[in-house]
Amino acid sequence: MEETVNIGLIGFGTIGSGVVATLNQNIQLLESKVNKKVNLKRIVDLDITTDRGVEVKPGVLSTNVDDILEDDEIDIVIELVGGYQPALNFILKAMENGKHVVTANKALLAKHWQEITDSAQKNGVRIAFEASVGGGIPLLAPLNDGLTANNIETIYGIINGTANYILTKMAAEGLDFDTVLKEAQEMGYAEADPTFDIEGHDTAQKLIILSILGFGVYVKQERFHVEGITRITPDDIRFAREELESVIKLLAIAQITDGELEIRVHPTLVPETHLLAAVNDVFNAVYLVGDVVGPVLMYGAGAGMMPTASAVVADCIDIIQDMERPVAYGPKETRVEKIKDISEVESKYYLRITALDEPGVLHSISGVLSDLDISIESVSQKKADKGEAVPIFIVTHHALEKNVQEALTLIDQMDFVKEETVLIRLL
Amino acid sequence: MEETVNIGLIGFGTIGSGVVATLNQNIQLLESKVNKKVNLKRIVDLDITTDRGVEVKPGVLSTNVDDILEDDEIDIVIELVGGYQPALNFILKAMENGKHVVTANKALLAKHWQEITDSAQKNGVRIAFEASVGGGIPLLAPLNDGLTANNIETIYGIINGTANYILTKMAAEGLDFDTVLKEAQEMGYAEADPTFDIEGHDTAQKLIILSILGFGVYVKQERFHVEGITRITPDDIRFAREELESVIKLLAIAQITDGELEIRVHPTLVPETHLLAAVNDVFNAVYLVGDVVGPVLMYGAGAGMMPTASAVVADCIDIIQDMERPVAYGPKETRVEKIKDISEVESKYYLRITALDEPGVLHSISGVLSDLDISIESVSQKKADKGEAVPIFIVTHHALEKNVQEALTLIDQMDFVKEETVLIRLL
Repeated sequence: MEETVNIGLIGFGTIGSGVVATLNQNIQLLESKVNKKVNLKRIVDLDITTDRGVEVKPGVLSTNVDDILEDDEIDIVIELVGGYQPALNFILKAMENGKHVVTANKALLAKHWQEITDSAQKNGVRIAFEASVGGGIPLLAPLNDGLTANNIETIYGIINGTANYILTKMAAEGLDFDTVLKEAQEMGYAEADPTFDIEGHDTAQKLIILSILGFGVYVKQERFHVEGITRITPDDIRFAREELESVIKLLAIAQITDGELEIRVHPTLVPETHLLAAVNDVFNAVYLVGDVVGPVLMYGAGAGMMPTASAVVADCIDIIQDMERPVAYGPKETRVEKIKDISEVESKYYLRITALDEPGVLHSISGVLSDLDISIESVSQKKADKGEAVPIFIVTHHALEKNVQEALTLIDQMDFVKEETVLIRLL
Repeated sequence: MEETVNIGLIGFGTIGSGVVATLNQNIQLLESKVNKKVNLKRIVDLDITTDRGVEVKPGVLSTNVDDILEDDEIDIVIELVGGYQPALNFILKAMENGKHVVTANKALLAKHWQEITDSAQKNGVRIAFEASVGGGIPLLAPLNDGLTANNIETIYGIINGTANYILTKMAAEGLDFDTVLKEAQEMGYAEADPTFDIEGHDTAQKLIILSILGFGVYVKQERFHVEGITRITPDDIRFAREELESVIKLLAIAQITDGELEIRVHPTLVPETHLLAAVNDVFNAVYLVGDVVGPVLMYGAGAGMMPTASAVVADCIDIIQDMERPVAYGPKETRVEKIKDISEVESKYYLRITALDEPGVLHSISGVLSDLDISIESVSQKKADKGEAVPIFIVTHHALEKNVQEALTLIDQMDFVKEETVLIRLL
């Protein structure tokens, strides 16, 4: 074991500390696998004084990123700074200097995919990012390599742990969104500013990466529908369970039919018999359908210090085992001819209309739906005192999204409707 | 795309036909990924006249295996003959002639692991066998590579589709084992001679392969406990559901604690809240726990023509992408110091004792259990007419297997016990 591979780590936060802990813990296992010395030569962070609770060899810490980017001995750079800048510049500079890059930065990849992979190609280095989607779950490699004989037809993902934790808790304890969010924040499962997670943006970024690998197409987030979970109530969850034998999950959906790609993120009613319905708490899972293999599901911890570190370190080892492997993600030629706008999507819908309990209300609502070719599968209404607003639960047969949206615009303008109607699509 | 990779396929049965169908269907996708021509140059089978419903180019079929083994142009040999011989000789000969090998033959690998991998090493060729466990599920590569930063602690697998189908059907429809087995045979989900699947041998062979990758240790099947599902009754399934909120699954179990490896195959009571409990019908899943990542589960079609072909073709592509990769499976140095005999395993147990409904029966049984340090968590007994044999259901607290076995020997010798007691371990 004479040869040494040197690694530089930029960003000594939670995940970075997990990477150091993993290397400390399992270095012998790793070195024996690659038959080389694996040396964490340098860690760069603005803060190099706080104790992260992991052992660092003397002289490894630095505040100067050039100690990594300009060090000719460093073969692999792990970028765990997060965000767009300076992370992008660090990655591009590292590549220009002939270094392979490992990152968990889904936001950056989702936004600057082309630039980053072009640079990797041009500089003959590898870019690995298993940790960017599904945390520690081996997910992107199985999709890219293990299912390589397949045209991927469907991707359904529960890929945001915070949102999944909140929905799981709401269902288990009958609590409302705000209460559970607060609890999640106290337990460290949600950020102080949780917008990114609960509004679906994090899920969308990860779905962009999955779509590249699955369908060979890069879709900007602006081009698809992204909707969060903030309007889900215990009423919705209860109705889902009791009347539809379903659970509500924030789902990333991408699927192709006749060259048309549907791609969207929104709360979705998932039948209890579907394996995704059993993915609870902060866990993530991705359900894929390939044209040869049929359905496949991968499940595990989608975030967190150690799980994410597991994927980052696996990427390093993968690069060490094959530094020459060309940058190739997803099918070279995409089957996607058109990105379908959500208005053209067909689905079954659950609607929760909050209306006064008056004569003629249901007649008016059903008239609007009928005029727009939306047929009703079931209706149920909570009893209330006269004059009080109550939820009316409607489940439709398959209908066109744009018709449903138009119907809701009309319905929500009616005098007796007291709140914006909540719509949840069925899987 | 000037370079051509030539593949030879030995064995044109169900899976072989699936491989040909997959190559026909997705050849462009595959060739664009590897940037080489991928040519199925030769298919060898004793029967080359039966129509398999897949298109084969003229001149490809042969009954002479040397047309593959001795053809210098063939780079990769796919062995789908199955069984021990002549499959073993074909593989060894192919390797001696410098050909990489892809196989789905778990029986052969489980028995001749050392010989086959030694030969691959010696001849500088790769041996790939993703299809041997879990059919189309990308499973071995994630375990070997994606989780490479981890010491694997636990492997639980539902890895026999036939057994899982039977148990699922028994549970869903309250039918007995023989009825469901017959139905499964009619539907093609069970072989005419189902012994191998229902007695756990197939599961055991796959567990041997998983243990090599997970723990770096090769354990012969004779060295561990393997038990099938033939004695499970609707009573057991009902009790599991109603009293233990569990389902019964045929589980492959391998887990390490302080250097001691537990490895065993038997019906197991799995709590309904565990994701494995939701793995139904012919589907397979493997649940792993790594010391860094925590739990991971991979799910999909564990057998069948196309799913298995998906894995075989992915292995071919993987080899084409990196023919130089050294043969390396699992950790080089094993943490296993000792294989724990099942008699030393501790578990909770479900016991179904069939005894006459007489005074003193329970007293005698509980006396035996108590003498052997087995404490009872719950007892329940079906009502019956005097003198009729009825099941007594006992759930124990954690107890030592050898004590439980000794207790059952004593109990089953008692006059009032009318059938051999059924024991199912709790997960």
